[in-house]
Amino acid sequence: MNDYVIYLAPSLGILGLVVMAFKSAWVVKQDAGDANMQELAGHIADGAMAFLKAEWKVLSIFVLFTAALLAYSGTVHTVNGKEIHSSWVICIAFIVGAVFSATAGYIGMRVATKANVRTTQAARTSLKQALKVSFTGGTVMGLGVAGLAVLGLGGLFIVFLSLFAGLGANQVRTAIEVLTGFSLGAESIALFSRVGGGIYTKAADVGADLVGKVEAGIPEDDVRNPATIADNVGDNVGDVAGMGADLFGSYVATILATMVLGQEIRVNDAFGGMSPILLPMVICGLGIVFSIVGTMLVTIKDDNSSVQNALNVGNWSSMLLTVVASFFVVWWLLPDGPITLRTATFTKWGVFYSIVVGTIVGAIMSVVTEYYTAMGKKPVLSIVRQSSTGHATNIIGGLSVGMKSTVIPILTLAGGIMSSFYFAGLYGVAIAAAGMMATTAMQLAIDAFGPIADNAGGIAEMSQLPPEVRERTDNLDAVGNTTAATGKGFAIASAALTSLALFAAFVGIAGIEHIDIYKANVLAGLFVGGMIPFIFSALCIQAVGKAAMDMVQEVRRQFREIPGIMDYKAKPEYEKCVAISTKASLREMMMPGAIALITPVIVGFTFGPEVLGGLLAGVTVSGVLMGIFQSNAGGAWDNAKKSFEKGVMINEEMVFKGSDSHKASVTGDTVGDPFKDTSGPSMNILIKLMSIVSLVIAPYIAGIVR
Amino acid sequence: MNDYVIYLAPSLGILGLVVMAFKSAWVVKQDAGDANMQELAGHIADGAMAFLKAEWKVLSIFVLFTAALLAYSGTVHTVNGKEIHSSWVICIAFIVGAVFSATAGYIGMRVATKANVRTTQAARTSLKQALKVSFTGGTVMGLGVAGLAVLGLGGLFIVFLSLFAGLGANQVRTAIEVLTGFSLGAESIALFSRVGGGIYTKAADVGADLVGKVEAGIPEDDVRNPATIADNVGDNVGDVAGMGADLFGSYVATILATMVLGQEIRVNDAFGGMSPILLPMVICGLGIVFSIVGTMLVTIKDDNSSVQNALNVGNWSSMLLTVVASFFVVWWLLPDGPITLRTATFTKWGVFYSIVVGTIVGAIMSVVTEYYTAMGKKPVLSIVRQSSTGHATNIIGGLSVGMKSTVIPILTLAGGIMSSFYFAGLYGVAIAAAGMMATTAMQLAIDAFGPIADNAGGIAEMSQLPPEVRERTDNLDAVGNTTAATGKGFAIASAALTSLALFAAFVGIAGIEHIDIYKANVLAGLFVGGMIPFIFSALCIQAVGKAAMDMVQEVRRQFREIPGIMDYKAKPEYEKCVAISTKASLREMMMPGAIALITPVIVGFTFGPEVLGGLLAGVTVSGVLMGIFQSNAGGAWDNAKKSFEKGVMINEEMVFKGSDSHKASVTGDTVGDPFKDTSGPSMNILIKLMSIVSLVIAPYIAGIVR
Repeated sequence: MNDYVIYLAPSLGILGLVVMAFKSAWVVKQDAGDANMQELAGHIADGAMAFLKAEWKVLSIFVLFTAALLAYSGTVHTVNGKEIHSSWVICIAFIVGAVFSATAGYIGMRVATKANVRTTQAARTSLKQALKVSFTGGTVMGLGVAGLAVLGLGGLFIVFLSLFAGLGANQVRTAIEVLTGFSLGAESIALFSRVGGGIYTKAADVGADLVGKVEAGIPEDDVRNPATIADNVGDNVGDVAGMGADLFGSYVATILATMVLGQEIRVNDAFGGMSPILLPMVICGLGIVFSIVGTMLVTIKDDNSSVQNALNVGNWSSMLLTVVASFFVVWWLLPDGPITLRTATFTKWGVFYSIVVGTIVGAIMSVVTEYYTAMGKKPVLSIVRQSSTGHATNIIGGLSVGMKSTVIPILTLAGGIMSSFYFAGLYGVAIAAAGMMATTAMQLAIDAFGPIADNAGGIAEMSQLPPEVRERTDNLDAVGNTTAATGKGFAIASAALTSLALFAAFVGIAGIEHIDIYKANVLAGLFVGGMIPFIFSALCIQAVGKAAMDMVQEVRRQFREIPGIMDYKAKPEYEKCVAISTKASLREMMMPGAIALITPVIVGFTFGPEVLGGLLAGVTVSGVLMGIFQSNAGGAWDNAKKSFEKGVMINEEMVFKGSDSHKASVTGDTVGDPFKDTSGPSMNILIKLMSIVSLVIAPYIAGIVR
Repeated sequence: MNDYVIYLAPSLGILGLVVMAFKSAWVVKQDAGDANMQELAGHIADGAMAFLKAEWKVLSIFVLFTAALLAYSGTVHTVNGKEIHSSWVICIAFIVGAVFSATAGYIGMRVATKANVRTTQAARTSLKQALKVSFTGGTVMGLGVAGLAVLGLGGLFIVFLSLFAGLGANQVRTAIEVLTGFSLGAESIALFSRVGGGIYTKAADVGADLVGKVEAGIPEDDVRNPATIADNVGDNVGDVAGMGADLFGSYVATILATMVLGQEIRVNDAFGGMSPILLPMVICGLGIVFSIVGTMLVTIKDDNSSVQNALNVGNWSSMLLTVVASFFVVWWLLPDGPITLRTATFTKWGVFYSIVVGTIVGAIMSVVTEYYTAMGKKPVLSIVRQSSTGHATNIIGGLSVGMKSTVIPILTLAGGIMSSFYFAGLYGVAIAAAGMMATTAMQLAIDAFGPIADNAGGIAEMSQLPPEVRERTDNLDAVGNTTAATGKGFAIASAALTSLALFAAFVGIAGIEHIDIYKANVLAGLFVGGMIPFIFSALCIQAVGKAAMDMVQEVRRQFREIPGIMDYKAKPEYEKCVAISTKASLREMMMPGAIALITPVIVGFTFGPEVLGGLLAGVTVSGVLMGIFQSNAGGAWDNAKKSFEKGVMINEEMVFKGSDSHKASVTGDTVGDPFKDTSGPSMNILIKLMSIVSLVIAPYIAGIVR
C-alpha cells in the first residue's frame, strides 16, 4: 500500500491554511483609515465578538450535553486485547467537529471585521483596490473553511485508523463510523450559527429600516440610527460567521457521505483498497489548490471594469481546473477493472463522469439562480412591473417567481441524480456532490466578499465619506447580492445530492432493505418529514418578525427619549440595539435547532428505521423546494427594489426611488429578508443535519420495526 | 347473494336528488325582490352562464380528445364468445364522469344565482329567513353533488357488472377498473373548473378592489364599479360551480379508491363477497340521508342568534348519525371472521374503528382550520398586531401563520393513517377517508351558502337597500368565510388519506413490489413530484395577477372614458369586465391543467411505475402541505382584515377601518385571495387527479423498469 496518499488531503488542507495566514496578514497590514472610521469599525467588531462569545456559551452547553449522550451510548471494540469504547471516540470527534466549525466561523468573522474598514479606506482610492481588499478578506474565510474541513476529516481519519488498527476487516468501517461524529458536530454548530446569525442580521436590518428609513426618513447606515451598528454587526455574524459554519458543515457532510459509501466498495487498488474512500478528500484537497489559483485571477483594471466578470473568471477557472485534475486523480487512484457497489457495477471512468455531472449541475444551478434573481432579467422585471399596482401585487409577483424558480433546479437535480447514478451507482451520486463542492474555498471567497463590501459601505456612510466611496462599495455590494444567491443554489444542490448518499448509507447501517413509501407508516413519516421545513421556516421568519419589532420599539424609544440624536448632538445607544439582537437571536434559535436534532431521534426510536427513512425523504424533498423557493424569492425582491435606485421603465415611464412603486418594492424586500437570509439558507443544513443524526443513531435503531 | 344491496346506494343517491328537486323548487318560489334587484341578479346569472358555456366548449374538446385516447388504447375481453372492448367502456365511463361533474357544478350555480337575490329579499325581513333561503340554496348544491356521485358510481357499477358478467372471476375487477374512467372524468373537470373558476373570481375580486376601493374610494360592490358584476359572477363560477365540481371529483375518487382495495379482499359474506366493495357506497348513501336530517336542524330563532352554532349543530349531528349508522352497516354487511388484505388481517370492527378514525381526523382538521383562520383567535390577532408595523410585517405574519398551521393537521393525518392502517390495513385507511367524506352533502351545503350570502350582500349594496339588509347578509358572509376554510381542511385531509389508498391500488395494478425512496430514480421522481405543486401554484397565482392587471386597466379606462359613471348618470360596461375575466381564466387554466394530466403519463411511460410512484408521493406530500399552508394563510389574512371593520385593540388602542394598519391588512388579504381560492384548494384535486391518471395507465406501464 502506498501509505503516503492518506497524508495528501490533510497536507493540502494545511497548505490552504498557510496561504490563508499570509492573506490574513496582508489584510491586517492595509490602511484602516482615520480615527472615526476605526472607532465605528471597532464598535462593529466588538458587537460581533460579543455575539460570538454569547453564542459559544450557549452552544458549549449543548455540545457538552450531546457529547455526554454520545459517550454514554457505549459501543465497545476489543483491539489487541485492549477495549476501545468507540462511543467515546465518536464523542471526541463530535467535539472536534463543533470546535472546528466554530473556528471556521470565527476566522471568517475576524478577518471580515478587519477587512470591512480597510475596504472603505481602499475605496477612497479605486474600485480595483477595494475589490482586492474585500475579496482577500473573503478568500481568508474560504481557505479557512475548506482547509479546516479537509484537515479535520483527513487528520481524524488517520488517527482513527491507527486507533482501530487491531480491528482487522472492521478497521476502516469503524474509523468512518466514528467520523460521522465529526460531521454531526460540524453540522449542529452550522445550524445554530446559520439560524442564530440569520435572525440577528435580519432583525437588526428590518428594525433599522422600518424606523430609520421609513419613519425618520434618514438614509440606510446613517450614524444617527441607533440600530445601524447592530445592522452592520449582523452582516458579520449572519452572512459571514453563520455562512462559514454552514458551508463548513455542508462540505464535511458531503465528503463524509462519499467516504461512507466508498467504504462499502471492495477494490483491488494500489492503496490497500482505500481509493474510493480517499478520492473525495483528495479531490477536495485539490479543489483548495485550484481555488487559490482561481482567487489570483480575480482582479479588475479600473473603476469601469465588471466585478462580476472578474469573479466569474476566477470561479469558472477553478472549477474547470478541478475537473481536469480529477480526471488524473481518478486515473491514478482508482483501479482499472469493474467496481461494484451494492447492485451497481461501474468503472473508474463512470466515477469521473459523475464528477463532471456534479460540476455541470452546480453550474446550471448558478446560472438559473442568477437568472431568477439578477437585475434586468425577466423575473425581477416582472416584480418591478407588479410593484406599480401596489404592495399586494409586488408580493404576489415575488412569491410566484420564487415558486417558479424551483422548476429548472429540480429537473436539473433529478437529471443529475439519475445520470450520476447511471455512471457510478450511489457512489456516483455522492462523488458528484463532492465534485460540486470541491471548490468551496473559491465559492465562499466570492460569497463572503459581499458582506464585507456591504459593511464597508456602511462605514463609508456613517463616516460621511465622499459619495464616490459609497458608489464603489455599492458596486461591490450589488455583485455580492447575486453571488450570495448563487452560493445558496450550490449549497442546496449539494444537499439534495448528498442526501441520497446519506439515505443509502443510513439504509446500509440500519440494516433495512427498503424505504417503501406506500407502507402506511412510511407515508406518515413522509408527511411529518415534509412538514418540518414548513414549521422550521415559520419559526425562523416569526423570530425575525418578533425581534425586529423589539428593535423597532427600542429605536423609537431612543429617538423619543434622547434629544439631539437627529442633529448629531447626542450619540445613540448603539449597544442597547446590539444587545436586543443578540438576546433575541440566541433565544429564538433554540426551538428550530431542537426540532432538527430531536425529531429523528424520537421517530427513529419509536417507529424504527424505515419510518425514519420516510421522514428523511420528506424533509429532503420539502426542504430543497422551500430552500430554493425562499432564497430565490428573497433575492428577486431585493433586486426588484434595487432596480428603482437607478430608475426603471414601467409602462413607458421612468420610475425612481421614492415613488409609490418603489415603496411597494420595499415591502417585498423586507418580506424577502428573512426568506433569503434566515430560513431559506438553513434548509440545506436542516436536511443534512437530520440525515447525519439518523446515521449516528442508525446502529441503535436497527432492530426496531413498527 | 342478496342482490338488492347493490341497488341500495344508487337508490339513496336518487333520494338525495329528489329532495334536491323539492328544495330547488322552494327556492325558486321565493320572492325575488323589485325590478332593479332582479335586473342586477339577471346580469350576474347571465355572466355566470356565459362563463360556464364558454368553459364547457373548451372542456368538451379536451374530453373528446382524451376519450378518443382512452378508446384507442384497446383492451379486449371475450365475454360469452362476444368481444368487449373495455377501453371503449372506460371511454364512456370517462365521458359520463365528466358530464356528471359539469352537471354538479351547473346545478349548484343555477340555484345559487336564483338564491342570491332571494336571500337579499329575505334579508329585508329577518336574518332567520335570509339564512333559510341561502342555506337551502347550499343544500341543493350539496345534495346534487352527493346524489349524482353515489348514483353515478353505483349505477355504472351495476351496468358494468352485467356487461362483464361472462368474465367469471375477473368480472368484478374489470368492472371496477373501468369505473376509474368515471373518476378520471370527474376529477379532470374538477381541476379545470376549480382552477378556471378560481382565476375568474379572484381576478375580478382583486381588480375590482384595487381600482374601486383603493383608487376611486367607492365601497365594495358599488354599482358604479364596472368590475362589480364580474366580481359577483366570480363568486358563482369559482366558489359555487368550481367547488361543486371539485367536491364531486374528490368524493368519487375517495369512494372509488376504497372500492378498488375492497375488490382485492376475498370474504365469505352474504353478498357474494361484494361487501367490502359496497360498504363505502352504502355509507356515503346513508351520509346523504343524514345530511338531509342535518340540514333540517340548521335554523335560528332571531337576528341575535349565532349562525355558526346553527351550522355546527347540523354538521355535527349529521356526522354523528352517520358514524352510528355505519356501526350497523358494518355489522350487517361485513362477515364475522378475519378479513385479509395483502399483509394485513383484521376484523369488521377494525373497519368500523377506521371509520371513526376518519371522522375524528375530519373533526380535528375542522377545529384546527377554524382556530388558525377565525377572528379573535391568536393567529389572526398576531397578524392584526403585525399589521401595525406595516405591509411587510403583515405579510410575514400571514406567511408564518400559514406555515405553522401545517403542524397539527399533518400530525393528525399521520396519526390517522397509522391508526386506521393498524385497525384495518390499507382498506382501513381508504374507508377512513370515505367515512370522513360521507357527509359531503352537508359539508357542501355549509360551504355553498357562503358565496350565496356574499352575492346577496353584493346585490343589496348595488340596489342601495337599507343598511340593516347588508348587515344581515354580512353576518352570513362572515360565517361563510370560516366554513369555507374548514371545508378546505376536509378536502385536503381526504386527499391525503385517499392518496395512500390510490398508491396501494396503483402498486397492485402496476405489478410492482415496492416504491423505494432510496433508489436514485425514485428519489428523482420524488423531487420532481414535490416540485409540481410549486409550479402549479405559481401558475395559478400568476394567472390571477395577470388577469387582475387586465381588469385594473379596463376599469381605469372606463372611469376615464365614460363620463358620468361616478354620478350614477352613465352605466359602466359591465359585460366588458365579465368578458376579460372569462377569457383570462379559460386561457390561464390550460397550463396547470396540462401539467397535472400529462406529467404522470410522460414519467410513467418513460421511467416505469416505481419512478411514477415516487412522483406521486412527492406530489402528495408537497401538495398537502402547500394546500394547508396557502388555504390557511389566505383565510387568516382575510379575517385579519375583517377584524378592523369592527375595530380591534393594538397596543392598547382601538384601531379601525381606514387606518394605516388596516391598509396593511388589505395587502395581506389581496395576497391571500389567490392563495385561498385558486391555488390552495386546487391542491387536493391535483393530488387525486395525478393518482387517478396513474391508476388508469398502470396496466400499460406495468412492464417498464428504468
